Amino acid sequence: MTEHTVRSYDTDLVELRQRIAEMGGLAEKMLSEAMQALLKRDLILAQTAIVADRRLDLLQREVEDKAVLTITKRQPVASDLREIVAAMRLASDIERIGDLAKNIAKRVVAMNGEYPPLKVVFGAVNLSTLVLAQLKDVLDAYAQRSVELSLEVWKRDDEVDALYTSLFRELLTYMMEDPRNITFCTHLLFCAKNIERIGDHATNIAETAYYLVTGEALPGERPKIDTTAISPLHAAADS
Amino acid sequence: MTEHTVRSYDTDLVELRQRIAEMGGLAEKMLSEAMQALLKRDLILAQTAIVADRRLDLLQREVEDKAVLTITKRQPVASDLREIVAAMRLASDIERIGDLAKNIAKRVVAMNGEYPPLKVVFGAVNLSTLVLAQLKDVLDAYAQRSVELSLEVWKRDDEVDALYTSLFRELLTYMMEDPRNITFCTHLLFCAKNIERIGDHATNIAETAYYLVTGEALPGERPKIDTTAISPLHAAADS
Repeated sequence: MTEHTVRSYDTDLVELRQRIAEMGGLAEKMLSEAMQALLKRDLILAQTAIVADRRLDLLQREVEDKAVLTITKRQPVASDLREIVAAMRLASDIERIGDLAKNIAKRVVAMNGEYPPLKVVFGAVNLSTLVLAQLKDVLDAYAQRSVELSLEVWKRDDEVDALYTSLFRELLTYMMEDPRNITFCTHLLFCAKNIERIGDHATNIAETAYYLVTGEALPGERPKIDTTAISPLHAAADS
Repeated sequence: MTEHTVRSYDTDLVELRQRIAEMGGLAEKMLSEAMQALLKRDLILAQTAIVADRRLDLLQREVEDKAVLTITKRQPVASDLREIVAAMRLASDIERIGDLAKNIAKRVVAMNGEYPPLKVVFGAVNLSTLVLAQLKDVLDAYAQRSVELSLEVWKRDDEVDALYTSLFRELLTYMMEDPRNITFCTHLLFCAKNIERIGDHATNIAETAYYLVTGEALPGERPKIDTTAISPLHAAADS
C-alpha cells in the first residue's frame, strides 16, 4: 500500500466520523427545538425541527454509501472494518432519533389550540433534559473512543425509564380526573414515549461505541429487558 | 474469477436471501401471535412472541456480518452490491418490526386482568390484518423482485393510515366516555401505533425492493409525509 493510498484511506474514515458528528449534533438540536416548541407553543420552531429531518435522512444515506464504497475499495483490516460498520449502525440510530424528534415537533403542530397545564409539560421537558444529556455523553463517548463513558450512559438508561414511568402514571391520573385532559395528555404520552425511545437509541449508540473499541458486544442485555415481561406496570411503560 | 469462486459467491447471496426470508416469516408470525394473544387474552402466546424476538435480533446480526464479509471478500459489481446493501436494510426494518410486535405482546402481558370490550380489540385486530397483508405482499415483492408489487404496497400505506386514524379517534371517544376505559384504551393506543409503524416499515421494505431492481430510489416521499405537518388531526395520529 503506498503512502498516498494510506492517506486517502484515512480520509475516508475521517469523513465518516465527521458525518456522524454532524448527524449527532443535528439530532440533539432537533430534540431540543421540538421540546422548546412544546414549552413555548412555538409553531415556527416546530417546523424548523420537522424540516431538519430531511438533512438527517440525506446524511444517513451518505454514510451508508460512503461505508460500502470504502469497504469495496479498501478491503479493510478488522479494526478499520469495525469503524466502518460502527458508522453505519450509528447513522441508523441517529436517523431514528431524528424521526422521533420530528414526530414530537409534529405533535406540537397538532396540539395547536390545546393548552396543557405547564406542570405536565415540565414533566416531559425534564425527561428530555435527561435524555439530551445521555445523547451528548454518548456522542462524546464515541468521539473519544471511551469505554468508561459508554458504560456510564448504558447503565444510566434505568434513570430514564424510571422518570418515564412516573410521567406516564401522572398523565394517566390527569386523564382520569377530567375527560377534557384526555386529548392533550394523549399527545404528551406519545411525546414522552418518543423521548424514552430516543434514550433507548442512546444506549444502542453506547453499545456500538463499546464494540468499536473492544471488538466485543456488551455482556448480555440490560436488566430491564428481562423484568419488563413479568412486571405489568413496567411493561405498560415499555412499548 | 474461477468457476469455484463464482459458485461460492452465489452461495453468499443465496444465504443472505434465505436469512431475510426467515426473518420476514418470523416477524409475520410474531405480529400474528401478538394479536391472537391480545384477542384471546393468551399470555403463553404473548410470551412466545416475546421470546421469538431474540432469534430475530441474532439473524439481523448474522445478515450484517455476512454482508460485510461478502463485500470485503468479493469486491462485488454494482448489481450484486445493491443486493447486499438491500439485505442489510431489509434486516434492519424486519428487526424493528419484530421489536414492535414484541412490544404489543408485552402490553398483552401488562394488560393481564384488564378486559377491554371486544369491539375495540377488533378494531386493532382489523388494523393488524391489513398490515399483515402488506407485510406478506412486500416480502413476496422482494422474493420475486417485483417492481409492480412493491409499488402497490407502497401506495396502499394510505389505507393503513386511514384505518389507524379512525381507530385512534374511536379509542379517544371511549376514554372520554368513561375514565375506567382510560387504562386499557391507552394500552390499545400504543398497540395501534405499533401496528401502524409496522406498516411504515413495510413501505420501507417496498422502497428497498424497488431500489434493488431499478437501482433508483422511489420518486419523492409519499404524499402523507407532507400533509401531516399541516393537518392537525392527521398529525395527531402520526407520531
